[in-house]
Amino acid sequence: MRNFTFQNATKVEFGKESYKKLPEQLKKDGIDKILMVYGRSSIKKIGLYDTLIESLNAAGIKVNEISGVQPNPRLSLVKEGLKKFKETKSQAILAVGGGSVIDTSKAISAGYYYDGDIWDLFAKKAPVKEGLPIYTILTLSATGSEMNGNAVITNEEAQQKWDISSKALYPVVTYISPELQYSLPKSQTINGAVDAISHVMEFYFDTTPRTEIQDALAEGIIKTVIKATETLIEDPEDYQCRAALAWGATLALNGLLATGKQGGDWSSHMIEHALSAVTDVAHGKGLAIVFPAFLEFSKDKIMDKLDRFAEKIFGIDTGSKGYDSDLAIKALKDWYKKIGQPVKLKEIGLEEEKIEVIADNAAQIAPFGQIQDMDKKKILEVLKIAYK
Amino acid sequence: MRNFTFQNATKVEFGKESYKKLPEQLKKDGIDKILMVYGRSSIKKIGLYDTLIESLNAAGIKVNEISGVQPNPRLSLVKEGLKKFKETKSQAILAVGGGSVIDTSKAISAGYYYDGDIWDLFAKKAPVKEGLPIYTILTLSATGSEMNGNAVITNEEAQQKWDISSKALYPVVTYISPELQYSLPKSQTINGAVDAISHVMEFYFDTTPRTEIQDALAEGIIKTVIKATETLIEDPEDYQCRAALAWGATLALNGLLATGKQGGDWSSHMIEHALSAVTDVAHGKGLAIVFPAFLEFSKDKIMDKLDRFAEKIFGIDTGSKGYDSDLAIKALKDWYKKIGQPVKLKEIGLEEEKIEVIADNAAQIAPFGQIQDMDKKKILEVLKIAYK
Repeated sequence: MRNFTFQNATKVEFGKESYKKLPEQLKKDGIDKILMVYGRSSIKKIGLYDTLIESLNAAGIKVNEISGVQPNPRLSLVKEGLKKFKETKSQAILAVGGGSVIDTSKAISAGYYYDGDIWDLFAKKAPVKEGLPIYTILTLSATGSEMNGNAVITNEEAQQKWDISSKALYPVVTYISPELQYSLPKSQTINGAVDAISHVMEFYFDTTPRTEIQDALAEGIIKTVIKATETLIEDPEDYQCRAALAWGATLALNGLLATGKQGGDWSSHMIEHALSAVTDVAHGKGLAIVFPAFLEFSKDKIMDKLDRFAEKIFGIDTGSKGYDSDLAIKALKDWYKKIGQPVKLKEIGLEEEKIEVIADNAAQIAPFGQIQDMDKKKILEVLKIAYK
Repeated sequence: MRNFTFQNATKVEFGKESYKKLPEQLKKDGIDKILMVYGRSSIKKIGLYDTLIESLNAAGIKVNEISGVQPNPRLSLVKEGLKKFKETKSQAILAVGGGSVIDTSKAISAGYYYDGDIWDLFAKKAPVKEGLPIYTILTLSATGSEMNGNAVITNEEAQQKWDISSKALYPVVTYISPELQYSLPKSQTINGAVDAISHVMEFYFDTTPRTEIQDALAEGIIKTVIKATETLIEDPEDYQCRAALAWGATLALNGLLATGKQGGDWSSHMIEHALSAVTDVAHGKGLAIVFPAFLEFSKDKIMDKLDRFAEKIFGIDTGSKGYDSDLAIKALKDWYKKIGQPVKLKEIGLEEEKIEVIADNAAQIAPFGQIQDMDKKKILEVLKIAYK
């Protein structure tokens, strides 16, 4: 275990209809004008939009809006949102949606306090120093963005999907009401679960020695998410499984699993971001393809951990079968297949020549990775494994 | 999983010599006069006292002191500390020690903002509304007080060991430097581990259904603490085991395991507090005696959980042996015996007649408990099991 600093002041209001506490919270915090950020029609379909507008107006809170956030959220909308925030003289942001909506809100928040081009912050040309108060109502469990200071945005012109991370971007209060996710398309629930599991794995396979406690917590979260996801595929309205998946996804990336580690690996995420930037594939699908390929590429360096993973997550008696790191990777891929995820680039219709483009894209921010320094050549090898 | 609110803003600085960041932090927070609270000689023996005084003075921070905090910390010293805090016009409290020192500091903090008798707050005659800024340097991992808003104080005149709990009492920053615990007497390390495990068990045996994720985290923490403790008995200077035990003890009671539960059971703690109030036995020893007895008394109501506990913590194949909740309790007691803890009241020299006094003492705050409502009669039955 390495030295670490841990602090996460976000307040989580978790449970059925917990979001109904929002107007009271905003009033307590002295906020009477907000910019609400959301996606398209889904929050209207489930009645959440009307409930919120009505209750916020009743509490005397003026709601301005910006909508149209898409998966792999775009820089252009961030800029529009920032303009709107300034024009309407809003005091805080209310993000109603999943990770894309929350990340868009965080980017607006960071941009508000930066005079230059927002993309400078993502290109790490300038640090994020301050942020606006952000309140989130989560409608899709996946990214963990509801309880951390990270945001990933796609610059569609430059085909760059890059991130920012700052203490200043943690939401003030996050409302997680699992029942809001009952009507999600099955694929979104599954993509979210794969994203959450991938976050846990980024820390789990970090090679920092002697992180027994973090590894045990990681295994607990992955196993719970796996079980919950399997049930939700059959019964999307199982409240307890929605709750388990939701809380698991939040804990996966709220800093807890990072404690004592060397930051996590994140190579799979970096490569997947390039894949999404080029092809617009859903992040959860991209990860189901890239992560096992990355593990395959790195297996010699993480033998022990793969062995433990096979045993603890999938109950494989690695002892009696001898030392075989492929068991873990095969079990993970089999589970992804079982829940309907692609595990090969071919399956999402990618042409083989595109691999080079994706590797170039990812290499823009190379070297990255904790397990090893990933450069273009290595990224290409991972993508080749992912293609085959 | 039940609805919950989770928030814990305490900043944890974890690692070798992390406490050296304290002067800089205090200056950043605009604090130049503190009241330092500590126990007796141990922080002087390990050189921590001199290092702190020197570095704080060098940073221009005036240090006032109150020392002499004992295990089962006393109300009289809290009152002395409060007087000193006011006299010296300190701006914040620096707690250097274990749970007793931190709890004393929290009680001073709560008392500062209350005009009446401090004990009113513990008797729940008045709520804790405000608190002073508290900084802690942890030298004994056990109570988890370094990352929560709880404090337990003994009113020695009334022989009452009672608690307060408030959002206002969370430390601002906590420094956990595992190497500060190298020279602890073996018994203190062991008592601390038993306390930490007991906190986890208070939540684990809470009967709220469908808390898979919390239970998995709980098992991860208990298993890690058990392993670390066994090594530390042999090699008290194993840094990684000190770190695992320390972080496990903090996570055991920082709110994480409480999420979705009905508050935990806490009967064992309430009964042990009465035992300590009457006999002054160390909390960790008292818990090693009371907790298994309480589980024995409650076993019909927590059969499934005991079964799971036996399997997950002690690797007992309960399936093949049939359903037998005694296996878990026996395994727990065996482990306590193995690490040298008493598991019977007889072993600490208690006279049987005293059981009635302890039950009366505990019954002052009855009914308590989540598994069942504990009244005097039931408390007495637990104590009888613990005696035999």
